[in-house]
Amino acid sequence: MRDTFHDELDQIGTELVEMSRLVAAAMSRATTALLDADISLAEAVISDDARVDATYRDLEERALDVLARQQPVATDLRTVVTTLRMIADLERMGDLAQHIAKVARMRYPTSAVPAELQDTIRDMGAVAGQIVAKAGAVIATQDTTRAVELESDDDVMDTLHRRLFSALLSEDWKHGVEPAIDITLIGRYYERFADHAVAVARRVVYLVTGEMPEPASTA
Amino acid sequence: MRDTFHDELDQIGTELVEMSRLVAAAMSRATTALLDADISLAEAVISDDARVDATYRDLEERALDVLARQQPVATDLRTVVTTLRMIADLERMGDLAQHIAKVARMRYPTSAVPAELQDTIRDMGAVAGQIVAKAGAVIATQDTTRAVELESDDDVMDTLHRRLFSALLSEDWKHGVEPAIDITLIGRYYERFADHAVAVARRVVYLVTGEMPEPASTA
Repeated sequence: MRDTFHDELDQIGTELVEMSRLVAAAMSRATTALLDADISLAEAVISDDARVDATYRDLEERALDVLARQQPVATDLRTVVTTLRMIADLERMGDLAQHIAKVARMRYPTSAVPAELQDTIRDMGAVAGQIVAKAGAVIATQDTTRAVELESDDDVMDTLHRRLFSALLSEDWKHGVEPAIDITLIGRYYERFADHAVAVARRVVYLVTGEMPEPASTA
Repeated sequence: MRDTFHDELDQIGTELVEMSRLVAAAMSRATTALLDADISLAEAVISDDARVDATYRDLEERALDVLARQQPVATDLRTVVTTLRMIADLERMGDLAQHIAKVARMRYPTSAVPAELQDTIRDMGAVAGQIVAKAGAVIATQDTTRAVELESDDDVMDTLHRRLFSALLSEDWKHGVEPAIDITLIGRYYERFADHAVAVARRVVYLVTGEMPEPASTA
């Protein structure tokens, strides 16, 4: 009974890592679509979010099924409940990548990102990619020391985010209000994406150490 | 055994409704703080979010405890898991009210909302209040017909949100980029608040009807 339970949980964990890869790819492609005003890539990201959503529903059903059949208690119960939360975080991260692709599509054939901010947004995309890759690795390895690395990646994301605002508020900003709105929303999407990745890593730490994290979405 | 389970679940449901009231009050006060540049009210909203977070942790512990002790299956299991999700939605709604209060505090002694947008933001605050009150009523009564009302309230929120953008993009916008950034973020916070309230109502519908909703956060 216990072995079946842990086998099933391992399988769900493996697919959770796979889901983190899907989400990482979505964010990477959304960033390219945004910077290069690549409409077909943007459309692909938007439609491919259905795969993330399907994975979400599948993993949720399986986690609930394990819960119902195996009736886990204590640590095992917390593992399943925490898994349900990680699935929800990853699903939301897919949405945020999709939101970025939608901004790219809305502004096509222009890029929503003015030339002087392309490097900052490229860096935000790169940090987003690193942070979700690390979240996936933390799920796979349960290595809580790696989980700490995500916190400093998140600090880098916050620094990049502040750099966006500095550019928008600088006297050199010549693009007016509409691009400022786009950049404000885009910045928020990257920041929230990173927050959810950090939340995933914190949940793994919680499972391993038993330390209750603060509500991760507070950031 | 079953009776104890349902009693405990009813108590959690009652506190979930109470939590929705806390969140409604937070949003109402945050809106007033924002419109009137009321710094002490803003500070109160910001510090009172700790109560929402404490309720979150308490209800989560209790829901997990019920899960571990009562080992519910089928519908009862789904009720507990869905309850865990509703707690998380309400916690996030508290964060969003807090975010709005922080914008109010940042711009004090000026209001972050220019005169011509005060009515629109006041309406968004009112709709946010209605929608969370209805979400609380749907939790309390399990009345799925009321749940449908939230969807149309959410449409009203979307219309108000579009009105904000129209004002920002109009030739009459004289306030420059910084207030446009504030309004963009504020608008996003109200919209997300309403999305989570709709998600809560949809989860109740799911419990009552067994119909699996789409991932509610996709909106």
